Amino acid sequence: MLENSSKNSCQNQPAVILLSGGLDSSTVLALANEQGFKCHTLAFDYGQRHRNELEACALIADTMHAASHRVFTLDIGSFGGSALTDKIDVPKDRDESVMNDIPITYVPARNLVFLSIALAYAETLGSTDLFIGVNAIDYSGYPDCRPEFIASFIETANLATKLGVEGQSVTVHTPLLDMTKAQIIREGTKLGVNYAMTHSCYDPSPTGAACGRCDSCVLRRTGFEQAGIDDPTIYAQPSK
Amino acid sequence: MLENSSKNSCQNQPAVILLSGGLDSSTVLALANEQGFKCHTLAFDYGQRHRNELEACALIADTMHAASHRVFTLDIGSFGGSALTDKIDVPKDRDESVMNDIPITYVPARNLVFLSIALAYAETLGSTDLFIGVNAIDYSGYPDCRPEFIASFIETANLATKLGVEGQSVTVHTPLLDMTKAQIIREGTKLGVNYAMTHSCYDPSPTGAACGRCDSCVLRRTGFEQAGIDDPTIYAQPSK
Repeated sequence: MLENSSKNSCQNQPAVILLSGGLDSSTVLALANEQGFKCHTLAFDYGQRHRNELEACALIADTMHAASHRVFTLDIGSFGGSALTDKIDVPKDRDESVMNDIPITYVPARNLVFLSIALAYAETLGSTDLFIGVNAIDYSGYPDCRPEFIASFIETANLATKLGVEGQSVTVHTPLLDMTKAQIIREGTKLGVNYAMTHSCYDPSPTGAACGRCDSCVLRRTGFEQAGIDDPTIYAQPSK
Repeated sequence: MLENSSKNSCQNQPAVILLSGGLDSSTVLALANEQGFKCHTLAFDYGQRHRNELEACALIADTMHAASHRVFTLDIGSFGGSALTDKIDVPKDRDESVMNDIPITYVPARNLVFLSIALAYAETLGSTDLFIGVNAIDYSGYPDCRPEFIASFIETANLATKLGVEGQSVTVHTPLLDMTKAQIIREGTKLGVNYAMTHSCYDPSPTGAACGRCDSCVLRRTGFEQAGIDDPTIYAQPSK
């Protein structure tokens, strides 16, 4: 089941929440908490060059009372092929007209790998619920953020696992799927998410300041502006 | 595309071959070699307790002239929930009538995780071909060995990746899918596979001798008997 509505009563049922340290996945954690899930957060150390993501994940999981937090080390970065893991320049100030092309920050099959591991983890926890902060509106053009990918993953997951054979079904919760970045920020702010803890930048400075110019910074900054909410991000460069 | 025929001309196209150190995946490597693929073998260190598998993989890849061999470390064993990774007893001398139940040696979502990572690797190699030794006949009842799982994985893979968006399609080669263990052994023997290098046992002795009584040993031993080919395996226990 692909589930992007936000109201259910799931008192204390275990769920696995994919956490990236960014704005989206923190909001997802707040939404899963609000629904009453017992939230087991899962972050990936995949050789990303913006490693302050992982510190942000631990802080977010702790502050937002996750039942457990786990960092799974995964060497997909060693395969190469992405500006997020390799010494390839992260693009800056991209023209909006090319924002739907697949960018060089694409990491091969990343969400498929992440969701597959989250599924294995969920199965050992006796959980059938996964939460992921994919978004089909304000996103960077990655194929594995599309709803058709998520729907197909669910079918594959049910065929891959013992729980599927036993007649249960995996639910992948994608509460942000149809929300704009501004809507996500408003929703999270309402739920008390402290976005100062979150990192979105693909290319932060050594001190951790956001570049303000990569796709992810541009989406974030514009989102705060459109939401009419103060952006707590520390940017190395002023807004254009 | 789900491909289980064995004759194609694929001179020097790169392919990723999942290698477990066992009889099946070694035969798959021989078949991929025969088809002319440039074979990049991929093994997983997932905390399996039968770790001589990994030594077998390196030997097989070397002997069978893989273009490259890679061991990917993956801590799914740490999630627990399987006799292959935990301190749970591996079942012995199982009644054949229960061989279609999902056994305690099942590792949650293992083939989904392995294929997803193989896909990421293939994408960075510019390859669209994956080979996996799943088998729907003489197998241990794992859900992620079924053809319907593989077919669904391919759909998901095409939606997850840049190559799918660009109009290419992943092919998952499952040349053993409809073969009995005896047929696999005959085919591999014809292609020159030295099965003395391979390990199938789920619970080998400290010296590396096969137990002769777990599901995997029983399938292997019976396969050699039915193929009428001498079994080079060193068993700790004589045949019943």
